[in-house]
Amino acid sequence: MATDFNPLSSDEFTRRLRAVGAAAYHDKHPFHQLMHQGKLTKRQVQAWIENRFYYQAMIPRKDAAIISRATDHGVRRAWIQRVIDQDGGGENSGGIHKWLRLAEAAGLNTNEVENFRCVLPAVRFAVDAYLNLVESRPLEEAIASSLTEMFAPAIMSERLPAFEQHYPWIEKDALEYFRTRLVQAPRDVEFGLRHTLEHCVTLRQQEKALEVLRIKCHILWSLLDAVHFAYVTPALLPPLFPADGDSQ
Amino acid sequence: MATDFNPLSSDEFTRRLRAVGAAAYHDKHPFHQLMHQGKLTKRQVQAWIENRFYYQAMIPRKDAAIISRATDHGVRRAWIQRVIDQDGGGENSGGIHKWLRLAEAAGLNTNEVENFRCVLPAVRFAVDAYLNLVESRPLEEAIASSLTEMFAPAIMSERLPAFEQHYPWIEKDALEYFRTRLVQAPRDVEFGLRHTLEHCVTLRQQEKALEVLRIKCHILWSLLDAVHFAYVTPALLPPLFPADGDSQ
Repeated sequence: MATDFNPLSSDEFTRRLRAVGAAAYHDKHPFHQLMHQGKLTKRQVQAWIENRFYYQAMIPRKDAAIISRATDHGVRRAWIQRVIDQDGGGENSGGIHKWLRLAEAAGLNTNEVENFRCVLPAVRFAVDAYLNLVESRPLEEAIASSLTEMFAPAIMSERLPAFEQHYPWIEKDALEYFRTRLVQAPRDVEFGLRHTLEHCVTLRQQEKALEVLRIKCHILWSLLDAVHFAYVTPALLPPLFPADGDSQ
Repeated sequence: MATDFNPLSSDEFTRRLRAVGAAAYHDKHPFHQLMHQGKLTKRQVQAWIENRFYYQAMIPRKDAAIISRATDHGVRRAWIQRVIDQDGGGENSGGIHKWLRLAEAAGLNTNEVENFRCVLPAVRFAVDAYLNLVESRPLEEAIASSLTEMFAPAIMSERLPAFEQHYPWIEKDALEYFRTRLVQAPRDVEFGLRHTLEHCVTLRQQEKALEVLRIKCHILWSLLDAVHFAYVTPALLPPLFPADGDSQ
């Protein structure tokens, strides 16, 4: 049996990390399944885009929090590319810009999307929990929480043709975000996985890495729960939403 | 029109604070309505008790965070009673103990409840957001977020007979938590409301107080959304839940 002095082998640890995704990554969520089967209404697709934007917008802050905590400049040098990928820089317009392009093509008011006007409270709580996790856990766990990227290429390769086929009212060139992630995610995950294998070396650390990866899956899952609850079943929006009466 | 130099009157500000509760307090949530109409199954009542315990357990930490930020010792001296009410002290067994007694009477394993084994991820995220709000906002906003207590006596006075009538499998003496709050909440709210009226004096501060009270209502609402989603409609639990395979 594995103990702190006899941790999981790299192969077994990697296998268990992948098993978390196989069980709990959000591609299994009924909302994603409806999306990929073309069964969402326009408003439901829009709701996903505007809520998911809150996650997109948090990513570079979460990555900057990781950089701010890394004492190894090699980690910082590798990780900064993620912030640039999302915020843009040089000739790269960036993931956030691409997502807003998607929002616009889906008929949303990009100003309102950028200001998070229609972000559900439960989506804020889940995504804020991601930043909080990265800020408060040991660095190796913060990095391990990013390993959901291992499971992303599969979902992206499904999503691209699904959107082209089922939601033709969104122009194809607005799907650039999905295309870009097909290339970026595998590159990012290589570094993250190697760091996790090299720095989670006791059984306790390995278990914590598995735990944060599960929590990260639950964050993504809860985001879809909230959108599903508000817009699909039982289709119940929270009260005072969106909040226009006060200053948020 | 109200401006920073011409803020809302105390009466109008109080009226607007109450209006937030009238619109968004969780007594309007369909899960509460099912509960008070006696339409929940035993498992659904249990799920509410074990998830709501995560909130109960956070209350004294949230109140201690407020105390830790108060420079006025009068605020600290008034507020500490809340921590004692919930954690217990002297002859008072405390709200947490009373809630665990309720959990036991409802047929739950109190060890598992205390260890948050069946707390839904989305419930954690929402309740953690409450602690985060109290730690990160100005003190007068942190205190204003407690004003949901203004709306609590009404829900408690409904809940007590509803439980006695509809869920007789829970012994009546296990409902002590609800009885106690009928007395505590009005006492607590008097201090919190007076502090809010005295310290939120610009229109901007008044608007922020209204905002945090709305967010607090959304936290309580999201807790019920999550329980409703997982146990009522569409009755879908998150994957890897409860998590027994790792160390959380």
